[in-house]
Amino acid sequence: MADELFEKFSSQYGVFKKIDAFGYLKHLADNPETERKRGKVVLVTADTPLKASRGEGKTTTTIALIDALRKRGIDAAAVLRQPSMGITSAGSKGGASGGGKASLNNPEFIDWGLCGEMASIEAAQNLLVSFAEKAVDDGLLDEILVPRVSEVPSRALRSIAVDYGKSNIAERMVLTPTCELMQIVVLSRSMDEIADRVGAMTAGTKDGKPVLFGSFIDMWRITNILATAVQPAYTETVEGSPVYIHAGPFANVSIGIPGLAAVEMACARHDIVIVEAGYGADAGAQKWLDVASREYGAQWPSAAIVVTRASTWRDDPALSWRYPFHVARLEEVGIPAFPLINLWDGEDDQIDSLRSFAAEAGFRRPIIGNLFRDGGEVLVSQIDEFVEAVAGNENEVRAQASNKGLSVVDTVRKIAKTAYGVPAERVIFKDGFEQSLAQAAELVSAVGGNIDDLAVVAVKSPATMTDNDSLPEEERTVTLKKVEVRTGAGLVHVNLTTSLTTPMPKIV
Amino acid sequence: MADELFEKFSSQYGVFKKIDAFGYLKHLADNPETERKRGKVVLVTADTPLKASRGEGKTTTTIALIDALRKRGIDAAAVLRQPSMGITSAGSKGGASGGGKASLNNPEFIDWGLCGEMASIEAAQNLLVSFAEKAVDDGLLDEILVPRVSEVPSRALRSIAVDYGKSNIAERMVLTPTCELMQIVVLSRSMDEIADRVGAMTAGTKDGKPVLFGSFIDMWRITNILATAVQPAYTETVEGSPVYIHAGPFANVSIGIPGLAAVEMACARHDIVIVEAGYGADAGAQKWLDVASREYGAQWPSAAIVVTRASTWRDDPALSWRYPFHVARLEEVGIPAFPLINLWDGEDDQIDSLRSFAAEAGFRRPIIGNLFRDGGEVLVSQIDEFVEAVAGNENEVRAQASNKGLSVVDTVRKIAKTAYGVPAERVIFKDGFEQSLAQAAELVSAVGGNIDDLAVVAVKSPATMTDNDSLPEEERTVTLKKVEVRTGAGLVHVNLTTSLTTPMPKIV
Repeated sequence: MADELFEKFSSQYGVFKKIDAFGYLKHLADNPETERKRGKVVLVTADTPLKASRGEGKTTTTIALIDALRKRGIDAAAVLRQPSMGITSAGSKGGASGGGKASLNNPEFIDWGLCGEMASIEAAQNLLVSFAEKAVDDGLLDEILVPRVSEVPSRALRSIAVDYGKSNIAERMVLTPTCELMQIVVLSRSMDEIADRVGAMTAGTKDGKPVLFGSFIDMWRITNILATAVQPAYTETVEGSPVYIHAGPFANVSIGIPGLAAVEMACARHDIVIVEAGYGADAGAQKWLDVASREYGAQWPSAAIVVTRASTWRDDPALSWRYPFHVARLEEVGIPAFPLINLWDGEDDQIDSLRSFAAEAGFRRPIIGNLFRDGGEVLVSQIDEFVEAVAGNENEVRAQASNKGLSVVDTVRKIAKTAYGVPAERVIFKDGFEQSLAQAAELVSAVGGNIDDLAVVAVKSPATMTDNDSLPEEERTVTLKKVEVRTGAGLVHVNLTTSLTTPMPKIV
Repeated sequence: MADELFEKFSSQYGVFKKIDAFGYLKHLADNPETERKRGKVVLVTADTPLKASRGEGKTTTTIALIDALRKRGIDAAAVLRQPSMGITSAGSKGGASGGGKASLNNPEFIDWGLCGEMASIEAAQNLLVSFAEKAVDDGLLDEILVPRVSEVPSRALRSIAVDYGKSNIAERMVLTPTCELMQIVVLSRSMDEIADRVGAMTAGTKDGKPVLFGSFIDMWRITNILATAVQPAYTETVEGSPVYIHAGPFANVSIGIPGLAAVEMACARHDIVIVEAGYGADAGAQKWLDVASREYGAQWPSAAIVVTRASTWRDDPALSWRYPFHVARLEEVGIPAFPLINLWDGEDDQIDSLRSFAAEAGFRRPIIGNLFRDGGEVLVSQIDEFVEAVAGNENEVRAQASNKGLSVVDTVRKIAKTAYGVPAERVIFKDGFEQSLAQAAELVSAVGGNIDDLAVVAVKSPATMTDNDSLPEEERTVTLKKVEVRTGAGLVHVNLTTSLTTPMPKIV
């Protein structure tokens, strides 16, 4: 039954299936009597990494966890983001399809472009820039505000001049996963919504007034390019557990979560849906909770798994406050948070000390294993409490208050307090911040909106939560630097802390 | 039997099949007893268009022709190039999947990115530039010679400066279909050959000496990106005739032909294989004959269909010499050349006068029809002579002499004579040409090669054959301007005539 419906909206795409999730969800909405599951979302998040390029093992954990749950007879699935092929291919980072026994099938395709989704989003965003250029030629625009994107990182594209030798317009190209169109694909539930949101994107300004794309482009040119890019890909772990992969925004400079339609489709097909939100809990999890759940109708998680490595947790004493903070902060908002320590080779002898350490910290009993070596098998006997917590955590925690109407600064203060542990009085403004905020507010007003109705996206370094995480708690600050609105995605980006958000990582 | 083999090397890819043509051909080579066909290649080429953006209808003709052949019980198939999505999406040109009754299934996917092949080639070529930048950082290179590419045209990218504000390196971005990696994909018969050719690409220079990519990059990073991009897509006409689509180099600034492996695979499966080579016969057909056939082992065509529109042929008296020239020039090299006049609405009453006109010109009996309106049906009764010619034209015409060893200038003179009708004494050198040629020759020598062993690619405007096609025959000249070598693809590009080869067309 449910599988027939899935097949109806699926098509084979090389080694993957692509799923028309929009069509699937519309079918369910139009046919309320159709049998479906009401799966619960579980977040896999992590400690703040010591270096952005070093993962704690969220994907590996996610894979091992669904394999373990399924071994126990529970219908679990995972929803992952698409890895950034550009970064993988350039050698800055390994792939993002798990490792060892906790792996996905066909990693060589997942890591290297999947079914072309990222490439299509890149082409569509760049086409928007081309149309904006034409609008300049036609006298409709005098400044372009949308950036060009590239999936392949290139040092020299960090700062470029276009129309060189004539108008010499300074630009910077950004990585495709950071762009507004990627956010729109993640947050939308239909192609019509995508078209509306692209139409509401600010192309640029004319005489200082914002001009939206909807006023001058044929939207079908964009939606034609995105046709299959909006469809999640379906694959499996090497153990045969179901995995959906869709969209790949970065968590530090964007929203860091997979496509919401993919998650909702997975919830209609499975009992537990593990959603990976990276980097650390201060980035991906914060964004799932405060952006996706509070503002875009995504499910509030029934539980969280907070991944760390033994070394991340303990090696830098000045930063060792972060991991317990993340765990406690999730518990505070009603999300049972389970520590999971992803061991590396040679760390098995640390299990006892890690357990004592966790007990001292007041954690739930930690789940510990070398998931690369042992896969989901090592988790099967350790997840009783986790399974109970998910089963027991019912809908009352799901509907969360929106922050809409709260001022941008108050929303950031709330994020700083809950997600970084910094109180309002230590959220400080860098020179120019207020001016940047006022300009952004004016832009939104000029297109008939209110900046306080946009969802706040914290743009920050993935490796820090405050201006200096190594300072004592009472000295930690968060500095607000700059504001940028994305009227199509409905987001307001606020740059804060050390913002080492290089849009073009170095080739290594 | 043959279909089992095809299925073995095929995988479903959305509405298309993707075919591992390299694997299919290797299987045939390794298993000489395996049943296969030995299909004959027929070129569909055209008159030189009056404007590059206005097609004569080569794709429509190709589709109608295979539909007509199959209606007559002949196993015909077509091999097409992938349309440039960027140009289609930007509105500069319609799609390229036929029209009306002579259409392909699923044009919305064919015209808008197919299965992501072009996007993968773009990413791989840009990654090469990124690795070249790293080589500069590492002191291995001091000048980069490979261009960045974009499938989406953008006016402002015609001239850019990268690393702006620091080193201000002037660059121009070119359209993806024009790049060397696209040529390599077209000309190669295996992934190993692709890797070897990418390794032989000139990354740039160090102290004036060329440096090849093979000396500093991991080739698997490139071949991983190209994994499915090297596979032709299989689709069908609305009448159910088989069509293979692979790669899309432009004919004016590149080689303008589909992937050779796709053509060879099609020849192993069908009796007549129609290959579309655009733009006019002076571009695509010249390149099929002199580059693909003479230098890369592609089959010499058994016949050609030369498409024109009634208006192209007759509207500009000063240019009316071109169409008969193309027809005669193909006949001269043993290729029976059939005029095909693709009528538009309201032109039916011209059929009689077109036939007289053709008779006066000494043509074979022209094939005439409104293919958009009537499809292949209108051709069925008109192609007796064509079918006989293909059947009668045997292998003796296939093996053609290579131009290797002939100097670059002598090869260009030969092309100018045979393809543009301009004798050697009117092939003239622009100031700087000889210097450019000498530099190019030196570069090839420095990497152990000989420029006279590279295949010559004429880089020119698609709308002109000489410096001024409207002059009387005895005054027409061809001016050689500049030389650029592509050591990986094994090509030497010679810019000539008016070279209106804007790498970034204007958005319209």
